Amino acid sequence: MEQVLELSNAQFQTVYNVLSLALASMAATTVFLLAVTPRVLPRYRLALVVSAMVCFIAAYHYMRIFDSFSDAYIAVGAGTPGVQEVFQLVKGDGFNEGYRYVDWLLTVPLLLFETVAVLALPAAVRRGLLWKLIPASALMIILGYPGEITADITAKAIWGALSTIPFIYILYVLFVELSKAAKNQPNQVGKELNGLRWLLLATWGVYPISYAFPMIGLDGADSFVYRQIGYSIADVLAKCLYGLLIFKIARIKSMDDSPEFAEAEMKEAPSSKAGAAA
Amino acid sequence: MEQVLELSNAQFQTVYNVLSLALASMAATTVFLLAVTPRVLPRYRLALVVSAMVCFIAAYHYMRIFDSFSDAYIAVGAGTPGVQEVFQLVKGDGFNEGYRYVDWLLTVPLLLFETVAVLALPAAVRRGLLWKLIPASALMIILGYPGEITADITAKAIWGALSTIPFIYILYVLFVELSKAAKNQPNQVGKELNGLRWLLLATWGVYPISYAFPMIGLDGADSFVYRQIGYSIADVLAKCLYGLLIFKIARIKSMDDSPEFAEAEMKEAPSSKAGAAA
Repeated sequence: MEQVLELSNAQFQTVYNVLSLALASMAATTVFLLAVTPRVLPRYRLALVVSAMVCFIAAYHYMRIFDSFSDAYIAVGAGTPGVQEVFQLVKGDGFNEGYRYVDWLLTVPLLLFETVAVLALPAAVRRGLLWKLIPASALMIILGYPGEITADITAKAIWGALSTIPFIYILYVLFVELSKAAKNQPNQVGKELNGLRWLLLATWGVYPISYAFPMIGLDGADSFVYRQIGYSIADVLAKCLYGLLIFKIARIKSMDDSPEFAEAEMKEAPSSKAGAAA
Repeated sequence: MEQVLELSNAQFQTVYNVLSLALASMAATTVFLLAVTPRVLPRYRLALVVSAMVCFIAAYHYMRIFDSFSDAYIAVGAGTPGVQEVFQLVKGDGFNEGYRYVDWLLTVPLLLFETVAVLALPAAVRRGLLWKLIPASALMIILGYPGEITADITAKAIWGALSTIPFIYILYVLFVELSKAAKNQPNQVGKELNGLRWLLLATWGVYPISYAFPMIGLDGADSFVYRQIGYSIADVLAKCLYGLLIFKIARIKSMDDSPEFAEAEMKEAPSSKAGAAA
């Protein structure tokens, strides 16, 4: 905690640009999801609006993280002949990683909500799943936080292990209970739902790996840079790409539910269809 | 990298205003494209929303580029009699050109997506084209970046040459494969599609020219100013004008697909028609 982290110019620029990339992706996906909401049947629109909210909340936090990062580091040694320019962490507020936890505390329950909402399950089944997933996800993030901010490796390991319990429970609910609840979904939806769960597992897996960096001795500037890149890419995949897959599932289900909707929204133009048939 | 770039007052103001012009164009086109989305048939709306996203992402990056530019230069010598006011690059964060690459990494694949999406091709053909175009465009930009940030002319030439390979492949797909796939399009769409491709070739051509400036010895303040103007104008044409052409194609195709839609949306007012007939 007390060490002064020194980043090279290339390291500083890389983190700077990756954080900006994540911010741009979150903001653009928010607008996209809101713009395409009318393109699904009304019963799937809440899932899309919630997906947009996830990206909106994340865009706000990436704006904060970006500002916090660029304010926390100053260039030192530039202009002096023979001295390499480096970026040093300014003492004071410093770089605030807490934004990430606040973000997850809000967005992770919403991500689980949109996953269940897009399936349009019977109300009792939906409620049952959400009552398991949402408290477990809040618990997972709350238990991870004390481990993130401590410099004590043992405390970090204990909080990390405690946080893993609700994580495994969430996976159980998603891969076992949700599968049972969703067995009457159209074939293609089953495939997309599977893709969604594996995307969630793969991207959420990045967080414990980054979390464990200091426990396996990775603690310098390189590890800081990799952690920021890892978190940012995982967030873009877990929120933007996830939201786009939710849109795709909502489209498939809308087409499947209503032939009239499918007719009006079909992508192939009548003329090109006629041309292909001829 | 280490030189201090000094801009005259006129040079500073020119870059400042051109960046602001680009920002205003991108933001306005975003709003325009979202506003006109209902003016095409549902099957063409995704292409318009994606065009709006391209302009939205670019507006964000021009805001960043503009702020980065105006923070990076300070006026020196003003107010001292007999001393010309100049703008010197402040050391520190400096002027970040990385934003342009982050922007292209997101927007160039989306531009190719909208080009294919607006044609409403059969799903298999569309997927085939996108699987070629999108990875190639990402590769083109990723390979260009190391060449942009290096001061070594040889490294710059090698990365530039590597980046040209996917660029030529993209042109091949657009001018040869896309032509075959689009041969059943209405006549006027064929013409507009051709305009779209030439606009893309002309505007994308600006990037390698600006990129090559330092390789042909153009490296001072003048070259910096021309490069910023060139990039900005190319971006406005490649995103705003391109988006408007996508809208035009979507309108033509909507009218062509559905006589009812054409009737409801026809441009000539009934009164003016009656007047012409009389």
